Amino acid sequence: MKIAIAQLNYTIGNFDENKAKIASSIRRAKADEARIVLFCEQAISGKPAYDLLNNVVFLEKCRETLKEVAAECDGITAIIGLPLLTDQGTISAAAIVADKKVTKYIGKQNVSSREELHHLDNSKGYGFVEVDGKKVAVFIGSDIRYFSEEFGNQADLIVSLQSSPYARGVVQNRYDFFSKLAFRTASHVVYLNHVGGHTDLVYDGSSAFFNRQGEAIAFLQKFEEDYVIVDTCADNPVLGIPEQNKTANVYRAIKLGLHDYFTKNGFKKACLGLSGGIDSAVVAALAAETLGPENVKVLLLPSAFSSDHSVEDAVVLAERLGVEYSIVPISDTYDVMLKSLQSAYGRLPFDVTEENIQSRLRAVLLMAFSNKFGHILLNTANKSESAVGYGTLYGDTVGAISILGDLYKTEVFDLARYLNREREIIPQHTMTKAPSAELRPEQKDTDSLPPYDVLDAILYRLIEENQTVDEIITAGFDNGTVKRVYELLIRNEYKRYQFCPVLRLSTCTLGKDRILPLTYKFESLL
Amino acid sequence: MKIAIAQLNYTIGNFDENKAKIASSIRRAKADEARIVLFCEQAISGKPAYDLLNNVVFLEKCRETLKEVAAECDGITAIIGLPLLTDQGTISAAAIVADKKVTKYIGKQNVSSREELHHLDNSKGYGFVEVDGKKVAVFIGSDIRYFSEEFGNQADLIVSLQSSPYARGVVQNRYDFFSKLAFRTASHVVYLNHVGGHTDLVYDGSSAFFNRQGEAIAFLQKFEEDYVIVDTCADNPVLGIPEQNKTANVYRAIKLGLHDYFTKNGFKKACLGLSGGIDSAVVAALAAETLGPENVKVLLLPSAFSSDHSVEDAVVLAERLGVEYSIVPISDTYDVMLKSLQSAYGRLPFDVTEENIQSRLRAVLLMAFSNKFGHILLNTANKSESAVGYGTLYGDTVGAISILGDLYKTEVFDLARYLNREREIIPQHTMTKAPSAELRPEQKDTDSLPPYDVLDAILYRLIEENQTVDEIITAGFDNGTVKRVYELLIRNEYKRYQFCPVLRLSTCTLGKDRILPLTYKFESLL
Repeated sequence: MKIAIAQLNYTIGNFDENKAKIASSIRRAKADEARIVLFCEQAISGKPAYDLLNNVVFLEKCRETLKEVAAECDGITAIIGLPLLTDQGTISAAAIVADKKVTKYIGKQNVSSREELHHLDNSKGYGFVEVDGKKVAVFIGSDIRYFSEEFGNQADLIVSLQSSPYARGVVQNRYDFFSKLAFRTASHVVYLNHVGGHTDLVYDGSSAFFNRQGEAIAFLQKFEEDYVIVDTCADNPVLGIPEQNKTANVYRAIKLGLHDYFTKNGFKKACLGLSGGIDSAVVAALAAETLGPENVKVLLLPSAFSSDHSVEDAVVLAERLGVEYSIVPISDTYDVMLKSLQSAYGRLPFDVTEENIQSRLRAVLLMAFSNKFGHILLNTANKSESAVGYGTLYGDTVGAISILGDLYKTEVFDLARYLNREREIIPQHTMTKAPSAELRPEQKDTDSLPPYDVLDAILYRLIEENQTVDEIITAGFDNGTVKRVYELLIRNEYKRYQFCPVLRLSTCTLGKDRILPLTYKFESLL
Repeated sequence: MKIAIAQLNYTIGNFDENKAKIASSIRRAKADEARIVLFCEQAISGKPAYDLLNNVVFLEKCRETLKEVAAECDGITAIIGLPLLTDQGTISAAAIVADKKVTKYIGKQNVSSREELHHLDNSKGYGFVEVDGKKVAVFIGSDIRYFSEEFGNQADLIVSLQSSPYARGVVQNRYDFFSKLAFRTASHVVYLNHVGGHTDLVYDGSSAFFNRQGEAIAFLQKFEEDYVIVDTCADNPVLGIPEQNKTANVYRAIKLGLHDYFTKNGFKKACLGLSGGIDSAVVAALAAETLGPENVKVLLLPSAFSSDHSVEDAVVLAERLGVEYSIVPISDTYDVMLKSLQSAYGRLPFDVTEENIQSRLRAVLLMAFSNKFGHILLNTANKSESAVGYGTLYGDTVGAISILGDLYKTEVFDLARYLNREREIIPQHTMTKAPSAELRPEQKDTDSLPPYDVLDAILYRLIEENQTVDEIITAGFDNGTVKRVYELLIRNEYKRYQFCPVLRLSTCTLGKDRILPLTYKFESLL
């Protein structure tokens, strides 16, 4: 039996475009003589739609669009995900469509992701469809993860329709999971994922087909649309599970996320502040590659504490990337603001206040540029900084989207090296100089933080691995350093609360997958 | 049988203080010869603890504290809420403590609130305890709302331990619900709620006791700690259900929320920008009343577009409140910043960019003051503005906490009149003049928005009542106005995403109870 797998990039609420993509794949599958054609979870609507799932106009549109798509389904069975308003509330369903009619709905049982809880109700779970005498079991989303051994080998084909976002390590994990599932159930298994970005989430695609022995017989593209036909009766060559390059995947995830954030919102041009440091350099390079250098404008906003080489490094990069740049020194505005404050409260010694003023004035200038010309401001912070609060609220936290905010500083360096893999794009000096915020004379990040390799290792254990302070100290890290990092981490939740949206690249994105109260006595945890 | 109800104000993670409060109430209950003493949901830990519920150190502290509290329980049964690490994950439990030992745990079945989903696992649901031959049914949190008719009249006493936050209308709803429950089951019913603020949530207390006829025989205080003994065998006089004054409740909710935000975080002093308008006037008055005028500092930050009366009104208010004020004009900084931008991109006509610059420079100055002197910045925005995006991101959205952000503009006026109920505090001129952002010459809010009574009525239907555009038009509102308001509402989610924490006062707080995607095609909804 021939099965068509359509891995497509949907936009939330763009019913016309989603319909056109689905209909075109149905026609292609019919031309290919497929008996079944598959579309991912919530293909009709796009995902995650949040409270639009409580909007009756939106839900009616879903049903209408399904009806229009169904008109294409003669001589083929289509299985298509959509949110569905039922007597039991809104559920995530798979519509089984044959002979131009919806013959059955199968509903998702385990609504569990942060994006869906509160917006979707639980339904009954997996169901069966018979096509050409073959028994097809359909699971939606995480239901497949609750698959129990009792299921046995009831199905000829197990279909898992998902919209599962990218995070470091998930691609490999999914391949392993579905391979084992096929082996255990002695069924063919197809895993079909959404592909595309929606603000902070990137769906990576990476759909796959496994035979009854648990061997892969088809892989769909990562981070792009794809379409594959698998004939379960044919003698399909077995494919090895490809090894994943983490940095290459992160690179592609960011590019897809950034691209779709712009195109799906109808934006074209981006701007950002270029400091001469590694973070903004990487953001500028990714933006220029993704959006085209002609659509990226960078602002150099030096203060009296900026070193000459910072401006030089930034200019070199801008010229290499071919992006337009302007230099707008902040010193005059900074001086006048300090003077106006002095008239209110006298002259006081320089402290973190004056550091923050510089960072915030840069944010005001960047937003002014953004407002004036319609360029969307890209944030340039990284995860190490936001974890320990090494950044200014309303200064380093601003922007429409943060594309590095879920990468540790050491991972930003990995990405910079990856960008430089063929030729030097990020200037060597930017890569090698000691990171500095340049908000006071001779400042270096290591004045107030441990070296980034140590900091990131501790943060990774605290955040990604949920280890306790004692466990990390036992693992050999310095007692005082671990405690200080932990204290910074839990004290700075208030800055992350007001952070701009952060593209999710890890399994534990701060402010999303890990949320602390803003009011609590944390001394008991130290 | 005498039952003691201890309605207490707990702090998340402050195990010593929570323990002392609980132990002291147990001793008091014993002195009062109570047979049972009750404490609310998650009393030991405080609530909502978010990801601390995944922290083993935190969970161990909960168990230890319970053990220490149990030592007080001789000759009395205590029922105490706490989060509990079990083989099935972390659950919200009630510990039944007698003879200085925990004799049983009852776990919550329906984890449903936004603060708990993802942090707590479901358990088995209500359970029974026998005390002096009486059958006591214990329900935790929302489990009582899933109470089914099959339960019948199995219990002599139904205990509902909650931590249920305040929102407009909930007090009355709860009284009605529990009164009916007592009548239907012919049981005594006690509803026990947490009291106190935790950043954006205020638990209002308002615990109550109903007899087997569904009549109220005890009400505990709203918005403050309380302790009551009810003797179920006595002839208890029946109390009428008190009518709720919405504005008075909102006033008390804000004061408790603000007070606890400061005291539980160890903060003392607040600052805010005073514009001469109604919103900042109300925030200043509430802050001065709650924190003491000596702890509140206001900054007047006029621009060239500020009218003289704005500064005068603000000064009159500051003097009436007895709070210190400084005047820091922003014109010089604004002019220099514009000049530095002109050098980069030439002279361009005045537009929303220059309006936003003024608002953002004010934010930079307020944060500078906050950083320099440690005063916590209070946000002064209201719900009408944030609903339609009539405010500057990083300008009007900043602060540690927004205490009016869940009140429509018309409700802010209600609150101002309430503050003026005995003598004029908010100047009459501030109450009567046409609202204006004063960011361009002769600007008025009604230049770009409908009058607030119309705007708020439409927003209330869209947000609180989830009505469709068509329903609202059918109800008699102007077609074009409704559509424009709806479009503004759904287009401005990105500003709300980065808003500071907003004290929840309604059943549909923007950004919390209602979340839209930031990337979607919304034309299909218009």
